[in-house]
Amino acid sequence: MTENSSSFKRGLDSGPDTERTMFFSDAVFAIAMTLLAVDIKAPDVPPDQLGQAILEQRPEFFAYALSFAVAGAYWLSHHRLFRLLKGFTGGLQRLNLLLLFFVALLAYATDMLALHDDTSLGVVIYAAALGLIGSVNTLMWSYCRRHGLFRDDVNPGLLQYARVRAPITPAVFILSIPIAFVSPSAAEYS
Amino acid sequence: MTENSSSFKRGLDSGPDTERTMFFSDAVFAIAMTLLAVDIKAPDVPPDQLGQAILEQRPEFFAYALSFAVAGAYWLSHHRLFRLLKGFTGGLQRLNLLLLFFVALLAYATDMLALHDDTSLGVVIYAAALGLIGSVNTLMWSYCRRHGLFRDDVNPGLLQYARVRAPITPAVFILSIPIAFVSPSAAEYS
Amino acid sequence: MTENSSSFKRGLDSGPDTERTMFFSDAVFAIAMTLLAVDIKAPDVPPDQLGQAILEQRPEFFAYALSFAVAGAYWLSHHRLFRLLKGFTGGLQRLNLLLLFFVALLAYATDMLALHDDTSLGVVIYAAALGLIGSVNTLMWSYCRRHGLFRDDVNPGLLQYARVRAPITPAVFILSIPIAFVSPSAAEYS
Amino acid sequence: MTENSSSFKRGLDSGPDTERTMFFSDAVFAIAMTLLAVDIKAPDVPPDQLGQAILEQRPEFFAYALSFAVAGAYWLSHHRLFRLLKGFTGGLQRLNLLLLFFVALLAYATDMLALHDDTSLGVVIYAAALGLIGSVNTLMWSYCRRHGLFRDDVNPGLLQYARVRAPITPAVFILSIPIAFVSPSAAEYS
Repeated sequence: MTENSSSFKRGLDSGPDTERTMFFSDAVFAIAMTLLAVDIKAPDVPPDQLGQAILEQRPEFFAYALSFAVAGAYWLSHHRLFRLLKGFTGGLQRLNLLLLFFVALLAYATDMLALHDDTSLGVVIYAAALGLIGSVNTLMWSYCRRHGLFRDDVNPGLLQYARVRAPITPAVFILSIPIAFVSPSAAEYS
Repeated sequence: MTENSSSFKRGLDSGPDTERTMFFSDAVFAIAMTLLAVDIKAPDVPPDQLGQAILEQRPEFFAYALSFAVAGAYWLSHHRLFRLLKGFTGGLQRLNLLLLFFVALLAYATDMLALHDDTSLGVVIYAAALGLIGSVNTLMWSYCRRHGLFRDDVNPGLLQYARVRAPITPAVFILSIPIAFVSPSAAEYS
Repeated sequence: MTENSSSFKRGLDSGPDTERTMFFSDAVFAIAMTLLAVDIKAPDVPPDQLGQAILEQRPEFFAYALSFAVAGAYWLSHHRLFRLLKGFTGGLQRLNLLLLFFVALLAYATDMLALHDDTSLGVVIYAAALGLIGSVNTLMWSYCRRHGLFRDDVNPGLLQYARVRAPITPAVFILSIPIAFVSPSAAEYS
Repeated sequence: MTENSSSFKRGLDSGPDTERTMFFSDAVFAIAMTLLAVDIKAPDVPPDQLGQAILEQRPEFFAYALSFAVAGAYWLSHHRLFRLLKGFTGGLQRLNLLLLFFVALLAYATDMLALHDDTSLGVVIYAAALGLIGSVNTLMWSYCRRHGLFRDDVNPGLLQYARVRAPITPAVFILSIPIAFVSPSAAEYS
């Protein structure tokens, strides 16, 4: 695909052809993000109660918007990472599957936030789920750096910037866990 | 990918390689459009009531057909836009995620129309949802024009035509909102 | 993409780059086919009734297998068609969206067969849905032939064979409709 | 796509262009794997029962994790196989659709394990479903070998290793079936 593809050894579990792993990951992200909205159902109530019923769906819309935004940010990070790679290895494939394992659980965590945003446990589970996605994402960046998977023509300044930026979102979510034990709503808006 | 790819600077958040953003968007569109039909269930009624039960599903089939057609038109517009681009930027990625955020809500809006097409609020929410998708779509076209993202070999006449055509669908849906306050069914067929 | 790409004029609604339409279609086919199995739920019954409950799911498994096989055959036909094309037009895009519109309704039709395979109406709706997918498929083949969309290096014998083969599946389903009025189970196995 | 593409004859049902079959398969795998998590719903209980309710979801999380891991392993095997191919045939397409047929049933089998892991029948059905996916996967490897579909530059040692590795996972699942008749939980952890 790229001019320096040939510099990466082609093996049974590694090679320069990262497209399929990217598209498989895109499909999982796309399905998980679209399914977030599926649980929000149009209220089946008489016309005069419709306005009120929609207003009561605010926690569901808030949880959907927050999860979609965070998942979108992780997808952008995944997109950014794979554009910089000259190839993949078996280890990267396994880390990527672990990332997608937690991405697929996002609907559960979002549902938990929509239903239980007034409890510490509900908020902790949500923050933990997003923190786990972010932690595996950070692991993937450092794995690629340690195993020399970055393209040779990548500006080291860009890599440095990306490396610093990757752990920020998971850190925010993980740090919000202790806050949730004191006040669920403070953790949610932190 | 294309002959003028190299004319677009490769950065951390921008570059000439738009394939992955296209395929991710395609996956979200495809899932959102396919899920529109999932809420229409075969009626679980005795054989002699089956015909009547299917006839009563007309609003659901109508809402599905309308939403599928409009979403299909927006997908075609997205397809048209990305074919004309020489690259992407971080701003375009974020606008695209905003578009997909509203596309994923299409099932909610469609359900709302199927259940509440006899109320102003139901029709307004449907029109607003489709109008929002269309507005972000129009924003993407003007963003690409303002930031010089169009390929240099694109016929300016085609671009002009596309620019004029992009806002028509959202305008129809947004204009139908005030009509919905007077008569829900008029807005639906306008 | 292919050696004769340049022979096809690049316009706003047409061009040689058919990949995105293929992948979008693949996503809709894949989702529709996978969702066919989603409605078959593991029976939530006491252990001693599990065997019996699974046996009673036979119509659901039969309907899933039949729909998956037919949808798979249509996907193969779609795959075959697009490999022979040198480009797409706006008309082909619209026919393709119409095809996907009916593909997305496959879960409804399959559910209908699983629930109402003992009624003429249930079987007719199923046969009609599959017949409609097949008819649009046949229309696409003849549209491409009439508009000169086939690659110049395609063996005319292959094209002739494909043209003859395309309408067979829809014909079988459409012909089974009158049989369903006499005997639902004969139509199902014809 | 690859340097030895031209060595594979282009026919109506065969050719060197395996991308579309790969991406279609990826979409089915991605949807089936993401849907595994969809059935795990956030418990809708009062706050003081939330902790207990989540603990009671352990069998669901265990079944999700096991199925995701096994499906991920099969996706890696599919990825590995297609990277080694110089083309596809109609027979390979049909075997691939059969594989995807069983992959789409994974949600059913997983649900069965989550609900009935304390019965022999529940565990047998789960093991049989995973064993069937693995058996078709093994069939695909041997089909490709018998029909000379492997690229000429593939190291025979790698192929030999892959051939030996492919049947191991299905064998484990199929061998666990008789164990399930004696003790469901032993089969599950074997």
